[in-house]
Amino acid sequence: MSKPQTQMSLGMNILGFGAHAAAWREGDAPVDAYLDVDYYRNIARISERGCLDAIFLADGPALGGDVATQPGARLEPTILLTAVAAATERIGVIATASSTYNEPFNLARRIASLDYISAGRAAWNVVTNAADAAAQNFGLAGAPLHVDRYGRAEEFLDVTLKLWDSWEDDALIGDRQSGRFADPAKVHTLDFKGRHFSVKGPLNLPRSPQGRPVLVQAGSSEGGKALGSRYADAIFTTQTTLPDGQAFYREMKGRARAWGRNPEHLKIMPGLSTVIGSTEAEAHARFDRLNAWHGEHGLLQQVAGRIGMAPEELDPDAPLPWERLGAVADFERGSQGFLEAQINLARRENLSIRQLSRRILVGHRLLVGTPEQVANTLEQWFLAGAGDGFNIMPDMFPSGVEVFVEQVVPLLQQRGVFRREYQGRTLRDHLGLPVAENQFTAARAQAASGY
Amino acid sequence: MSKPQTQMSLGMNILGFGAHAAAWREGDAPVDAYLDVDYYRNIARISERGCLDAIFLADGPALGGDVATQPGARLEPTILLTAVAAATERIGVIATASSTYNEPFNLARRIASLDYISAGRAAWNVVTNAADAAAQNFGLAGAPLHVDRYGRAEEFLDVTLKLWDSWEDDALIGDRQSGRFADPAKVHTLDFKGRHFSVKGPLNLPRSPQGRPVLVQAGSSEGGKALGSRYADAIFTTQTTLPDGQAFYREMKGRARAWGRNPEHLKIMPGLSTVIGSTEAEAHARFDRLNAWHGEHGLLQQVAGRIGMAPEELDPDAPLPWERLGAVADFERGSQGFLEAQINLARRENLSIRQLSRRILVGHRLLVGTPEQVANTLEQWFLAGAGDGFNIMPDMFPSGVEVFVEQVVPLLQQRGVFRREYQGRTLRDHLGLPVAENQFTAARAQAASGY
Repeated sequence: MSKPQTQMSLGMNILGFGAHAAAWREGDAPVDAYLDVDYYRNIARISERGCLDAIFLADGPALGGDVATQPGARLEPTILLTAVAAATERIGVIATASSTYNEPFNLARRIASLDYISAGRAAWNVVTNAADAAAQNFGLAGAPLHVDRYGRAEEFLDVTLKLWDSWEDDALIGDRQSGRFADPAKVHTLDFKGRHFSVKGPLNLPRSPQGRPVLVQAGSSEGGKALGSRYADAIFTTQTTLPDGQAFYREMKGRARAWGRNPEHLKIMPGLSTVIGSTEAEAHARFDRLNAWHGEHGLLQQVAGRIGMAPEELDPDAPLPWERLGAVADFERGSQGFLEAQINLARRENLSIRQLSRRILVGHRLLVGTPEQVANTLEQWFLAGAGDGFNIMPDMFPSGVEVFVEQVVPLLQQRGVFRREYQGRTLRDHLGLPVAENQFTAARAQAASGY
Repeated sequence: MSKPQTQMSLGMNILGFGAHAAAWREGDAPVDAYLDVDYYRNIARISERGCLDAIFLADGPALGGDVATQPGARLEPTILLTAVAAATERIGVIATASSTYNEPFNLARRIASLDYISAGRAAWNVVTNAADAAAQNFGLAGAPLHVDRYGRAEEFLDVTLKLWDSWEDDALIGDRQSGRFADPAKVHTLDFKGRHFSVKGPLNLPRSPQGRPVLVQAGSSEGGKALGSRYADAIFTTQTTLPDGQAFYREMKGRARAWGRNPEHLKIMPGLSTVIGSTEAEAHARFDRLNAWHGEHGLLQQVAGRIGMAPEELDPDAPLPWERLGAVADFERGSQGFLEAQINLARRENLSIRQLSRRILVGHRLLVGTPEQVANTLEQWFLAGAGDGFNIMPDMFPSGVEVFVEQVVPLLQQRGVFRREYQGRTLRDHLGLPVAENQFTAARAQAASGY
């Protein structure tokens, strides 16, 4: 196993009003805040005060959920995070975008542009989107099969990495006297012809400030694991129990090694939803208040949705209907990663559906407790080799990020497992990732050394 | 003809280092400035000091021109203009994007997101992209035929306008007590099924601050004119002589009326390239200096490129080879609008190719002269009914925008044909365009009034 790093990374995942579906009803923020750039800027600045690695925005190109009861609309992440980057100095920005419903040239260029504008703080979180609603906005009747989405994603990443690497570092000359702007021999076409894409290239941007933007992969299905271990710099994963988290961590580091990679250069970041109170009782009171808004039906619906069933089909006081759940790898009605994480938790702790509905919110592990308990679990998972860092999903904004930064972060700092100040300026610096060498520059250097 | 407005609109078109191909060699800005967001922020702030309507960014999804001698790389406009909007308060931002190489759902959402983040200052400039290099980054051997690009563009705009209009203005409820977030009866699917696109909708964003973003159309071919007169709020056009500009203006206002539109709600904005000096001699000296960097061959190449020929095929001291130029409407090797504008100028003034190469830079009318001469020609064209406003393309940045704002704008203000301060906060306000009524709200109002 790779040598564990001594300090963890932390991302702040801004899920609209928060990870609890009733967050908008509690009134922490105005009901139209999710369309207001200042709402996001404020969360980002608070997170930056806590020296967090990055702001993370999930996404899907469709109106999600039931608009009658939920704010399913979202500002587009690359645009919103450009505005957030302009209002911050150090914190990274991770934009989710779909490999199924974009073209590599356009997306590679947008993320690279964000890397320029943020001076090296940009990342793309690749997702394939399992939702039919997204497919129906792009000429399809329903989402492509899991295997097809991941086949396209693999080729998409291959093309994107080549586009990001198409200019050598010293391609720009800029000699006014001779009129030589760039060395065309150092700006490379791809001439890529694959099953899904044909892209001539080069990208119409030189290598960006981080060499290339950080690549994050979210999705813990077999397809996601194969993709992430090969291409990603960081994996955002859902792990609901420590043994499962440790097993996933070991597996992914091993897979990275099998691809010939340094496993330290693949960061594993499980998600953690938080409901924080100054005492356990206060935390649970806060959670109960949110649950009361959402109602029993709403809570059960979240569990049912993740197994592709209606809440009416389930007995809340019984366990998950094991006999009716097929193999995870055959699941096509939603995220395989979320399905598996939910099954793991229910099985290991022998939970009824009602109990399960209070142990998980958006599909990630949930902790309801004090700042100390949150710090404890983050430290425990980190030291036990279940995560290089964590993507934090507070129940509600902005109070959830405020309490995390003001009360959890200082505990982690005191224990020496989180930075007291930023050591670098780029997201790669924060994550402890090297700047990838340009393939052509490397080949030249090798040739010059005579092998 | 529509009642002419009393004050003109002005856009600032940031073409990399400037409209002159040798701008980067003159040293007005560092050679890597075109990748630096601060370079653009500075130009935008200067333009905002002059109360200009908007910053305009052209674009194509490919490395343009010859990278050996030209900075063909570009930051992606929607991203770059988000950063520019974050650094300004009033000025509009017009992002060019291709209808041939985007999907309506993604682009409609990005532009609407920019409209939110800029608080109502966003516009999309639709282009179809004639370049093969762009096509080759998207799986094609070469650019689709003109007629096919414009067929797709028409359907793209139709879908985009429907997406932008899919939420009624009062769809959001946000009632915490009842848990009603939005009224689903006021959030409309499109169920659009066309020849190029099938899009279910709705957009995952409510109507944006301007009702919908401003729609600009660039391209003066027959296809472009049909599209622009029907859908656009403003047309960015190339017109090289006053009679041609007047004829185009009259034609487009007439076409708008024929579509049942108020012709005042379609703004005609010809481009004007400027080389400004405090005396005519100084302006020409500046122009000569830039031309010397670019060289005779470079100048002739620009003319040749616009007729789809190599400079070696042309006699610089002869007129354009009229017998070898086919009908403009059959031209497939580049922009029909630029071709026609060049032909019009050469023919009306009986210019040799060498003379022509000094009368036109990037395809738009060029004026080399004093601030007074620039103000004169803008005022003349405006009062003569050849433009509601103008898109200014200085030879070189930042000096070209500085002299325009400091010396041309005050003259226009003194003559009463340009604003002394912003009257409103949105780009629609600046352009004198109304907020489009939502189609569903309008239908409801009509139904309620009993017809």
